[in-house]
Amino acid sequence: MIIDRVRREELRNKIMTADEAAMFIKDGMIMATSGFTPSGYPKAVPLALAKRAENGEKLNLTIITGASVGDELDGALSRTGVMVRRYPYQTNKSSRDAINAGKIMYQDMHLSHVAQFINYGFLGKINVAVIEALAITEEGGIIPTTSVGISPQAVKNADIVIVEINTTQPMELEGMHDIYITENPPQRKPIPIINPGDRIGTPYIPCDPQKIVAIVECDIKDNVRPLGAIDEDSKKISGHIIEFLEHEVKMGRLPKNLLPLQSGVGSVANAVLGGLTESKFENLTCYTEVIQDSMLDLIDAGKVTVASGCSLTPSEEGLKRLHENMKHYAKYCILRPLEISNHPEVARRLGVIAMNTAIEFDIYGHVNSTNIMGSRMMNGLGGSGDFTRNAYLSIFTTVSTAKGGDISSVVPMVSHVDHTEHDVSIVVTEQGLADLRNTSPTERAKRIIEKCVHPDYKPMLKDYFERASKGKFKHEPHIINEALSFHGRFMETGTMKIK
Amino acid sequence: MIIDRVRREELRNKIMTADEAAMFIKDGMIMATSGFTPSGYPKAVPLALAKRAENGEKLNLTIITGASVGDELDGALSRTGVMVRRYPYQTNKSSRDAINAGKIMYQDMHLSHVAQFINYGFLGKINVAVIEALAITEEGGIIPTTSVGISPQAVKNADIVIVEINTTQPMELEGMHDIYITENPPQRKPIPIINPGDRIGTPYIPCDPQKIVAIVECDIKDNVRPLGAIDEDSKKISGHIIEFLEHEVKMGRLPKNLLPLQSGVGSVANAVLGGLTESKFENLTCYTEVIQDSMLDLIDAGKVTVASGCSLTPSEEGLKRLHENMKHYAKYCILRPLEISNHPEVARRLGVIAMNTAIEFDIYGHVNSTNIMGSRMMNGLGGSGDFTRNAYLSIFTTVSTAKGGDISSVVPMVSHVDHTEHDVSIVVTEQGLADLRNTSPTERAKRIIEKCVHPDYKPMLKDYFERASKGKFKHEPHIINEALSFHGRFMETGTMKIK
Repeated sequence: MIIDRVRREELRNKIMTADEAAMFIKDGMIMATSGFTPSGYPKAVPLALAKRAENGEKLNLTIITGASVGDELDGALSRTGVMVRRYPYQTNKSSRDAINAGKIMYQDMHLSHVAQFINYGFLGKINVAVIEALAITEEGGIIPTTSVGISPQAVKNADIVIVEINTTQPMELEGMHDIYITENPPQRKPIPIINPGDRIGTPYIPCDPQKIVAIVECDIKDNVRPLGAIDEDSKKISGHIIEFLEHEVKMGRLPKNLLPLQSGVGSVANAVLGGLTESKFENLTCYTEVIQDSMLDLIDAGKVTVASGCSLTPSEEGLKRLHENMKHYAKYCILRPLEISNHPEVARRLGVIAMNTAIEFDIYGHVNSTNIMGSRMMNGLGGSGDFTRNAYLSIFTTVSTAKGGDISSVVPMVSHVDHTEHDVSIVVTEQGLADLRNTSPTERAKRIIEKCVHPDYKPMLKDYFERASKGKFKHEPHIINEALSFHGRFMETGTMKIK
Repeated sequence: MIIDRVRREELRNKIMTADEAAMFIKDGMIMATSGFTPSGYPKAVPLALAKRAENGEKLNLTIITGASVGDELDGALSRTGVMVRRYPYQTNKSSRDAINAGKIMYQDMHLSHVAQFINYGFLGKINVAVIEALAITEEGGIIPTTSVGISPQAVKNADIVIVEINTTQPMELEGMHDIYITENPPQRKPIPIINPGDRIGTPYIPCDPQKIVAIVECDIKDNVRPLGAIDEDSKKISGHIIEFLEHEVKMGRLPKNLLPLQSGVGSVANAVLGGLTESKFENLTCYTEVIQDSMLDLIDAGKVTVASGCSLTPSEEGLKRLHENMKHYAKYCILRPLEISNHPEVARRLGVIAMNTAIEFDIYGHVNSTNIMGSRMMNGLGGSGDFTRNAYLSIFTTVSTAKGGDISSVVPMVSHVDHTEHDVSIVVTEQGLADLRNTSPTERAKRIIEKCVHPDYKPMLKDYFERASKGKFKHEPHIINEALSFHGRFMETGTMKIK
């Protein structure tokens, strides 16, 4: 029963079915929801919306979230054509297919921009916020579940709020959140976080109770994604990074317990963080977006003193572990709004060590995180730019080849740039690590080709670089008609290799 | 006589000739200097270094500045081969030629990174700082001249400091500077600037007097650059921007007096700011890098209440005006260290309106600020990324064609990316302004082609976009073998037009 979770009595008469609540949402609206990579997103109301579309109703929505959300939202609303516009990130197959088919207008954004753009009115008037909650406080405050995302800004800016109380979410989550909302310029003040564990806000999202038009019970669990087993390549990448970090400590450029770690989403990122469990580093801190399984391992190993993030996103196995020991993990974890977890101001002040995955990088250190072969959207930028650009060290990882060796992840020129040569300090593949600090583009190219490229592609990249270097302009040498030829060849012949 | 300007008596015995002072600088050293776009840089000591090289001495140096410096430094040391490595920005013809010839290893960096990278030790041990100064205080503090740049970090980290007292710099500059130095993580605190005019530091650069090994008199004026006359195209660009800003005020998305303005360097930037003199906006503020002539106009017109920057960089005519009325302008101007003038934390908090110039941008909103045809370094990134990425609104301007119409500044894919689609909100040419907020890549392409492209190139870009859109992947459609064909054609035939 959710009645105990609706602590403000006058709101209990707003409890209704998901179908009833969904009727507040009309064709053409802009809907902002809770949820982050994919945790803590609303499930029952989106499924009710999908049902209406399946029954033939015309229902087109713009959907704004913190980051990726589960199939009940992104999947169901993409397949039924409800979602016609989407910000700022997704990882769902149905959404991705619809985006690549040109059916969903998708703007891939820096996550840290989303919350403030909502506040600025840049994304239009938010008609409705749909927020998954643990409970509603006596003041009408909304306690989030496994993520915070853009919920504070969605609630603040929406005309009406629909709350989904998810009864599968354990009440031990209460107190883990720290909600702080920035003002718009010119009233904005410094964000007073000096250490990753600093609490600066409230444990709930302030909400005018008048705005809450519906409260819905939901018992669908977060549709978490499985994490790939940690393979040999990921272990090698992790090993290169740890060796590098040890070297930096030795050189006096990093404290013994490093600086706050940020790690991207997915299996390689999980493996990299996992490698630290076996390392000799102690008293680590994390200031990141997503708290994955390996973070639980680090906590269990006594390696981490605090993990600040925007969401708890374990695998199914990790979720079980988390639920069974929530009180234990709650001592270490803080969940913040996306705007704060990814804030450039805080990332730079703390001096995060940013570790994110690349689709490909080029010999001069530009990174493609989003569009395969220049045009095919994979997931999106996520928070990689928020951290990379403001990091103490910005590290990008990728396995040196893909598609069974037919794609080299290191190319003459990336087919889409998400992070420029100015933003990237370290690139790593299973082959090795290239430190790009303090280098001109040509020095960078030599180092990347030597350290990171798969042996199958080394001669080709060396050849390209040497021929390009014979051109008139030698700062960042390219042969413009050949710069994207690796991609062209793959698209024509199915391999980047010369047959 | 400089003796009055060396207020700490015990330091007066360090006064010597530039030739003598230059002898502290040895082959292989890393030299960090004052100077910013190109004001307040040392002149006498660099010229003495050039003379040594001309006399056959082997003298190779790494040179780090705040930004571009004048010909006495960048020019003289490039032509004599003294400069073998250079960070982070330059605008000098001799330097540029040597960089493009592969003779100087140049790392083009976000300016806001330089100061902290010096502090982190990422750029190597600073052997010597050479700082142009107005005077030395009784405590040994160094009062900068027309710029602050990286001088505080150079002085802090260098083994030895050489001071050039420039007697052409008016003493009225004293008090205009506000020196604040950040700690390294994990000790870093919030930067307490809430309004563009806030003073948070000291009017001089703290310096251990023991470090000062030489004090040199210099009477060479800043080698300021002429500003191009404001032409019709620049006026049109300025007009489009002002119309847009008025619209944003009307829509309630900007305050009546806007938000702090940041404006890049050069003639177009100067024209854009100049346009505001004629506008109806009042009580404007500026939080920018460089204070150019048009800022003096805005002050004279009573339009600006405060101008915060890193340097005073007027034209020769403007310099005269500035010197004659220094007391007047000093009331409005604050000069800050580069790290603070360009700090992402402050830029985002204040919500700057960033206006910078592009070499080219593409139909999806990626911007090239640095490398012509992908490989030919023009100047460098400068602070454009610092502001763009953290701005309330990030605006890029360029004239729609170059080289008498043979180059289109709007292309299918830029040949080098400095600012990604995720960072750019507005692009403007004399043809018109395209608002890219809230758009998918394909919506962006249509808008840019319609609003910004020169009529000569509109059919070609439309044709490219339409054909690319027929491909399988429609999120950000490209024909990979044709994406850089405009550049390829120009390099082969001398024009991007199809003959």
